[in-house]
Amino acid sequence: MSRQMPPAHPFDDDKLREECGVFGVVGVSDASNFVALGLHALQHRGQEAGGIVTHDFETGFNQARRMGLVRDNFTSANMMASLPGPIGIGHVRYSTAGNKSQQTAIRDVQPFFGEFSMGGAAIAHNGNITNALALRKELIERGSIFQSSSDSECIIHLMARSMGRTIPDRMEEALRKVEGAFSIVAMTRTKLIGCRDPLGVRPLVLGKVGDGWVLSSETCALDIIGAELVREIEPGEMVVISADGVQSHFPFRRAKSRFCIFEHVYFSRPDSILGGRSVYETRENIGRELAKEAPVDADLVCPVPDSGTPAAIGYSLQSGIPYAMGIIRNQYMGRTFIEPSESIRNMGVRLKLNVNRALIKGKRVILVDDSVVRGTTSRKIKDMILDAGAAEVHFRIASPPTAWPCFYGVDTPEREKLLAANMSAEEMRVHLGVDSLKFISLDGLYRAVGEENGRDNASPAYCDACFSGEYPVPPRDMISKGFKANKVAAE
Amino acid sequence: MSRQMPPAHPFDDDKLREECGVFGVVGVSDASNFVALGLHALQHRGQEAGGIVTHDFETGFNQARRMGLVRDNFTSANMMASLPGPIGIGHVRYSTAGNKSQQTAIRDVQPFFGEFSMGGAAIAHNGNITNALALRKELIERGSIFQSSSDSECIIHLMARSMGRTIPDRMEEALRKVEGAFSIVAMTRTKLIGCRDPLGVRPLVLGKVGDGWVLSSETCALDIIGAELVREIEPGEMVVISADGVQSHFPFRRAKSRFCIFEHVYFSRPDSILGGRSVYETRENIGRELAKEAPVDADLVCPVPDSGTPAAIGYSLQSGIPYAMGIIRNQYMGRTFIEPSESIRNMGVRLKLNVNRALIKGKRVILVDDSVVRGTTSRKIKDMILDAGAAEVHFRIASPPTAWPCFYGVDTPEREKLLAANMSAEEMRVHLGVDSLKFISLDGLYRAVGEENGRDNASPAYCDACFSGEYPVPPRDMISKGFKANKVAAE
Amino acid sequence: MSRQMPPAHPFDDDKLREECGVFGVVGVSDASNFVALGLHALQHRGQEAGGIVTHDFETGFNQARRMGLVRDNFTSANMMASLPGPIGIGHVRYSTAGNKSQQTAIRDVQPFFGEFSMGGAAIAHNGNITNALALRKELIERGSIFQSSSDSECIIHLMARSMGRTIPDRMEEALRKVEGAFSIVAMTRTKLIGCRDPLGVRPLVLGKVGDGWVLSSETCALDIIGAELVREIEPGEMVVISADGVQSHFPFRRAKSRFCIFEHVYFSRPDSILGGRSVYETRENIGRELAKEAPVDADLVCPVPDSGTPAAIGYSLQSGIPYAMGIIRNQYMGRTFIEPSESIRNMGVRLKLNVNRALIKGKRVILVDDSVVRGTTSRKIKDMILDAGAAEVHFRIASPPTAWPCFYGVDTPEREKLLAANMSAEEMRVHLGVDSLKFISLDGLYRAVGEENGRDNASPAYCDACFSGEYPVPPRDMISKGFKANKVAAE
Amino acid sequence: MSRQMPPAHPFDDDKLREECGVFGVVGVSDASNFVALGLHALQHRGQEAGGIVTHDFETGFNQARRMGLVRDNFTSANMMASLPGPIGIGHVRYSTAGNKSQQTAIRDVQPFFGEFSMGGAAIAHNGNITNALALRKELIERGSIFQSSSDSECIIHLMARSMGRTIPDRMEEALRKVEGAFSIVAMTRTKLIGCRDPLGVRPLVLGKVGDGWVLSSETCALDIIGAELVREIEPGEMVVISADGVQSHFPFRRAKSRFCIFEHVYFSRPDSILGGRSVYETRENIGRELAKEAPVDADLVCPVPDSGTPAAIGYSLQSGIPYAMGIIRNQYMGRTFIEPSESIRNMGVRLKLNVNRALIKGKRVILVDDSVVRGTTSRKIKDMILDAGAAEVHFRIASPPTAWPCFYGVDTPEREKLLAANMSAEEMRVHLGVDSLKFISLDGLYRAVGEENGRDNASPAYCDACFSGEYPVPPRDMISKGFKANKVAAE
Repeated sequence: MSRQMPPAHPFDDDKLREECGVFGVVGVSDASNFVALGLHALQHRGQEAGGIVTHDFETGFNQARRMGLVRDNFTSANMMASLPGPIGIGHVRYSTAGNKSQQTAIRDVQPFFGEFSMGGAAIAHNGNITNALALRKELIERGSIFQSSSDSECIIHLMARSMGRTIPDRMEEALRKVEGAFSIVAMTRTKLIGCRDPLGVRPLVLGKVGDGWVLSSETCALDIIGAELVREIEPGEMVVISADGVQSHFPFRRAKSRFCIFEHVYFSRPDSILGGRSVYETRENIGRELAKEAPVDADLVCPVPDSGTPAAIGYSLQSGIPYAMGIIRNQYMGRTFIEPSESIRNMGVRLKLNVNRALIKGKRVILVDDSVVRGTTSRKIKDMILDAGAAEVHFRIASPPTAWPCFYGVDTPEREKLLAANMSAEEMRVHLGVDSLKFISLDGLYRAVGEENGRDNASPAYCDACFSGEYPVPPRDMISKGFKANKVAAE
Repeated sequence: MSRQMPPAHPFDDDKLREECGVFGVVGVSDASNFVALGLHALQHRGQEAGGIVTHDFETGFNQARRMGLVRDNFTSANMMASLPGPIGIGHVRYSTAGNKSQQTAIRDVQPFFGEFSMGGAAIAHNGNITNALALRKELIERGSIFQSSSDSECIIHLMARSMGRTIPDRMEEALRKVEGAFSIVAMTRTKLIGCRDPLGVRPLVLGKVGDGWVLSSETCALDIIGAELVREIEPGEMVVISADGVQSHFPFRRAKSRFCIFEHVYFSRPDSILGGRSVYETRENIGRELAKEAPVDADLVCPVPDSGTPAAIGYSLQSGIPYAMGIIRNQYMGRTFIEPSESIRNMGVRLKLNVNRALIKGKRVILVDDSVVRGTTSRKIKDMILDAGAAEVHFRIASPPTAWPCFYGVDTPEREKLLAANMSAEEMRVHLGVDSLKFISLDGLYRAVGEENGRDNASPAYCDACFSGEYPVPPRDMISKGFKANKVAAE
Repeated sequence: MSRQMPPAHPFDDDKLREECGVFGVVGVSDASNFVALGLHALQHRGQEAGGIVTHDFETGFNQARRMGLVRDNFTSANMMASLPGPIGIGHVRYSTAGNKSQQTAIRDVQPFFGEFSMGGAAIAHNGNITNALALRKELIERGSIFQSSSDSECIIHLMARSMGRTIPDRMEEALRKVEGAFSIVAMTRTKLIGCRDPLGVRPLVLGKVGDGWVLSSETCALDIIGAELVREIEPGEMVVISADGVQSHFPFRRAKSRFCIFEHVYFSRPDSILGGRSVYETRENIGRELAKEAPVDADLVCPVPDSGTPAAIGYSLQSGIPYAMGIIRNQYMGRTFIEPSESIRNMGVRLKLNVNRALIKGKRVILVDDSVVRGTTSRKIKDMILDAGAAEVHFRIASPPTAWPCFYGVDTPEREKLLAANMSAEEMRVHLGVDSLKFISLDGLYRAVGEENGRDNASPAYCDACFSGEYPVPPRDMISKGFKANKVAAE
Repeated sequence: MSRQMPPAHPFDDDKLREECGVFGVVGVSDASNFVALGLHALQHRGQEAGGIVTHDFETGFNQARRMGLVRDNFTSANMMASLPGPIGIGHVRYSTAGNKSQQTAIRDVQPFFGEFSMGGAAIAHNGNITNALALRKELIERGSIFQSSSDSECIIHLMARSMGRTIPDRMEEALRKVEGAFSIVAMTRTKLIGCRDPLGVRPLVLGKVGDGWVLSSETCALDIIGAELVREIEPGEMVVISADGVQSHFPFRRAKSRFCIFEHVYFSRPDSILGGRSVYETRENIGRELAKEAPVDADLVCPVPDSGTPAAIGYSLQSGIPYAMGIIRNQYMGRTFIEPSESIRNMGVRLKLNVNRALIKGKRVILVDDSVVRGTTSRKIKDMILDAGAAEVHFRIASPPTAWPCFYGVDTPEREKLLAANMSAEEMRVHLGVDSLKFISLDGLYRAVGEENGRDNASPAYCDACFSGEYPVPPRDMISKGFKANKVAAE
């Protein structure tokens, strides 16, 4: 049976997409229930599949990996009873495979599990290994059999071949060989392990629930289980958590942090806390910055739902132009309705959104969106707004032009499909057919996330490769396929 | 397989619920595709089941009735191909049956179909027949066999027994015998029929799409198919639409309109147009009225998502207190997660909402909600807001106290479970544990919906029985069971 | 999900098919479990759908009707728990609808239920009402709404309109208006009712299990629940069974019994007892008669599996020619495999049967089958046997040529598709391409079922209309459509 | 959804069970359709799961592995379209895991696939690796990650670690390291590979269909696709089949053939050809031998359906006692009906079989069965026969007492649960409660399969370890766990 999955965002086919969320817990009486809740709270980070591994000493390791939403797979009593034990990890993911068959896809669902001579281990990975192809080729030549097409599987094979005496030792050894972005949650029979790459590109936080410990991509998953935030795992840090508490290591060469700035713009949930600040407030700040940088005289500030909302509120507060819901989202989205033979203009958009016609008519409208990727849906929204009789349409975008692909765990179109990679700002405005189009500046974005002086071009505080084309980790596999970056960090 | 259905509202177990949406189309080449889209847009009016009937001259009448959402049942090519023809009607509904088995429920799913000597007819009903029990008893005694427990089925049996020569004639005769609220969409092989009860309690609009005609509970379903709004069907009007156009009748004794005022407050979608005005704007007006009636000094105005949003925006605009999303709704709601043995305080609410902790902390917060029914979720939300460190919590409610049950097609708890039926305003405030609690006045609500002078108590313009206990149609079956109204219209 | 249903017989698309089995029990603690077992034992009488109705005084009447096999629908604890109570009836059926949609089909699944002024009743019917069209037309004109396309539904509407004071009274009155063949099992809240038409065309037996009573189409369903056979219900008898025991009535004008002789040939299970004798033994007798009537010199007697087996054993015993399984049936039949592009000769048959090549090669083979309807599969089997190298193929058929359709509850092709309606015996032999083809004579068949003097042409002991074209009940609806019988009983 | 699978034999929980069937084809235009049909014909060799791998040069390797029957999984157009290409292999299997969860089971479903540096390969295995535990331990220590609990997975890991230049080379090298019984069908992108262990314990045949080649466990799977039997693959032979034809190798030390004699008794389908002779005829021979060895005066010879049928026919032909179907099998078996609270004696058996009461009553009955394993169902059948009024019951068994477990790919109970391992013949007779009980002698069985002089005890022609306790391949893993054989072949 095919099930239509409600997407995180009505136009997520025209958004950059975070590829994964990870979660783990240890020291509770029924880890799988916590993991299911945590993954549910992280569902916006990956909606096409999810998996959970747990361990108890009676039945050993148990796992379930499923296509579809957490709420559809991990809520039955039978399912949860099949995942017993006080320790468990989980993963939600997008399938990055465009046209692959489902058979392939389920093989790619994490966590991955391996049986080593000292016992089993499971691993869940958010990020992307930039030298995975090279590693994979070498591992296959030496006799490893890959079960998936995922870059993440390299890690568990490297662990299998390590001479390390313990699983954390093997994981350290394995991770020293991989390059790229990784926030990892792993487990052995008794230990929960968390690790972030040296630049800390992807988020990972530590929490406490009762006597147990939690690792999670975002703080919103701590809230759902009533856990308290202890701290963020630091870039380059590995924590090994057991009955004896939390041990911290720094197995990698130290480097300056380069957290993904797009987590602030779009990926993370607005109720999560990043760097001590509400993501919602950061986005409201972005809206305020945008109102300062790109003011315009208008009647209404309307968000493109739902991700443009906080920035639109900020824009309204800064500009004094009233905020209104000019576009209403259908709460029961489904993508696959059959179009009547009398063709319906922009039917795909109508399934998801409807314009508040009576409100919009005759008004000068500022539409605030988080980003423009291909620009396809921006055009359709503009059409709808004009069809409803708007007098003017002004687009304000809460991020700089997205002109470069991400190789660190985000699903981006190829560069030639990114509107900003091929057009100037004015060309884009004409292409979208709006009265004005303004993006926040890169400096403005840095200010909004708390860097008062804007971007330090010599040593930026964030990874902003999707805007700047400056890649803090060399995308080795892509370079070997011919990709040319704007700038690549020295090794 | 049990399927978790995403509810219209995160707390719809603590809301009044509209029970039905109806839709019909004639004169298009593939009616079922239009009906599916229309029902999808009306899904908020009934999420537990839906059905479609169509007719073409090759295969006759075809129908499909299913438990679950429109997008899960009426999107496959196979399904739609099984519903061919240029005319069709559909229905979405709540099951009002608390603990009945699914076998019973599917029998209750509309449209209902009957084969008469002059051909078949199907009927979809939004509203409630207040003398259904008495009619049913009499029909059974005379040999009718009921297939459902639905009050609506009476209509089709009355039609079967009518001596009328045409189906519209029989429908007129049948409807003259029923009492209560009804907005009906029906069809024969070639005619689409719409009808509203003399008071026009439930909405019904007429639209045009290409050469075809549309009937729908709300205008938002016209928008999704690109149809244009022609006009509302008038109270007491019956329209019979065929290749020859729209014929209008007024078969009932004329009466003053008493449209349901709660459609403005909560039931209708904010992008629908009622009485020529955007529902969204009416709700923003309610918020403005509320700010005038019940001001309070505070830092933030936050909606209880999602239905409190327009009123919260209105409150903010009127009061000048900044609007903010203090509570974030999880887009992937599911009700049935298994709670970990370490019990999680208010887990049910956490699955649906999360407080924006960093934003709320230390703030005086005005929470705007559309209504208070049982009050159970209001208490939990207040808990979450206080847990997050809010300094003060002020509830502002966009409707008067809901103290009386509705018998006209809305699912309300028994009167003893309505908070406002049992407590004074101050008792409610103490019960909810908030710093202040204010409801809009009934006059204020009338002003917000456009009655400048507030409610005309001698002859109110709306049905407001749920607030006033004044019932414009005698709830005959309920009265025979012992129900005592505040006031019942003379017959 | 489409499910492939293992058919009763590998070629049942080329067989006459019994359309229904009925079963009921009262006075046990959990009737539904008994009914499920009974229907499972009667599954050969109808494999496309089944239904159960039970009653207890806490939840009232409960029912479940499902497409598919009993074992796939009525074995879960949930399902059975939804059907509580000490009394219940059930039904299995073929869909006679060739190309109707599933929506239609489920409406046609029995038992049918009706709520009358003195309480509800459910009814399950094996047979066919020969004046159903006329009754239906009249009932619709008077205001009855039919839910199915089934002839059986007339009975419950006639009951609804009866002025009888009790349900058995109403059932008597209703049945006096219907013509045709019927073995009925019905129930009220406390009474189990059984009834056979005056000619007793279809079987119905009474059994006892513990303190409870059972009604069943065949005795094999008594065996599965450990019930003992009390007696057959007599033609024209109605029994009403309650806590007070079994009351017997004969509401119809008495007539000479005309039991369906094809029940002996094919429909009933070989382990059932009909008229005091094992069906298996009767079929073995048929084989012996056939060997006497149509001997031939050969090496092996092989059954066409599975229904030809007892007659083949009888033929072998009488003739002294060794019995062998020359054709092996695949136990995992499925009809819908996709044929490879290199087309496979007779693939449809290969999916179901395989010839024992090494055994058959060079042999003169007698193939014994129960009947020839269209002859399509007989030809394919002959092909397979010859492909495997048989020297000669002789068909021996355990019934006379099937030249007339049945209108009493058996699914027969239209007369023009019956091979024997269009060809002489020699033409059939040439058409099938076999060395010899012999059918048992009608007299021989009567002798095998115990009529020592063969058929009494003046007053035959059985209904043999499918062979003789002599119809003991006038097929009124068919006659009005133009059907010409060989001979129709006087009224 | 749980699906009840119709078992191969009504008492297969009291039978030895073949664990696998393998099939492959190359050189046809749509291999998957052929493989599905072939697996369907081999379904009796494994009914709990099945898998297919194919390859074409556009989409690469594709696979689907499913729990359940071939007809339920591999018949949809979608499924088959997802498995394109001119080459493919498949596997059906029993799950030998008693209480493992389904998650585990699906991982164990074959074919197994591995990506090597020179390309991918898939492998399907019938048999059992007797040194799998030792191999697995060593492979894990060297860094291999196992995905299943199957012994067969060792082969593909050994291949991954081989230095062989081609996949057939690697397979040879791998198979030289494994011990036990194996009939393997494997594939690369262009080559179909078949191999039998040096003793040829399990069957494997080569066939030709059009221009393509087929490998199959049994000949019945050639018949279903219209392929012709070319020859059996020889013990110790490896064939590599490509566009250039069939190349044959003998990579192992030559040894005397020791084919499994139980394939003749029970595992293989009666219409398959083994050693040039119909399995059906061999079984009829066994019945004749048994009649000579163990005659008894009686009225009827009845098979225990279905596997006792050919031997019962042979016994009848040899003894002259009439053959009859005294026990009728229900064609719609299901195991999980809920038993009514009034407990039904032997309900489990009644669901599957029914005694032909009228036939059996007062008769002296010889029951012929293929084997006695635990004896549990033999007792129940005897009960049913006696309940039906049989005067005497004589069991005749078409195999010697099964006293030893099989370690070569057959699912046998532990030795302590085998009736014959714990009782003398007379003790078994008393335990079963029958008038006489006779097994065919081991010499008699050898005669029936064509060894005129019976068993050559110095060098038996077959593997008969289950009867004799003489193991031609040392069951190394079992010995290391403490198993004591009667006799183990020298290495």
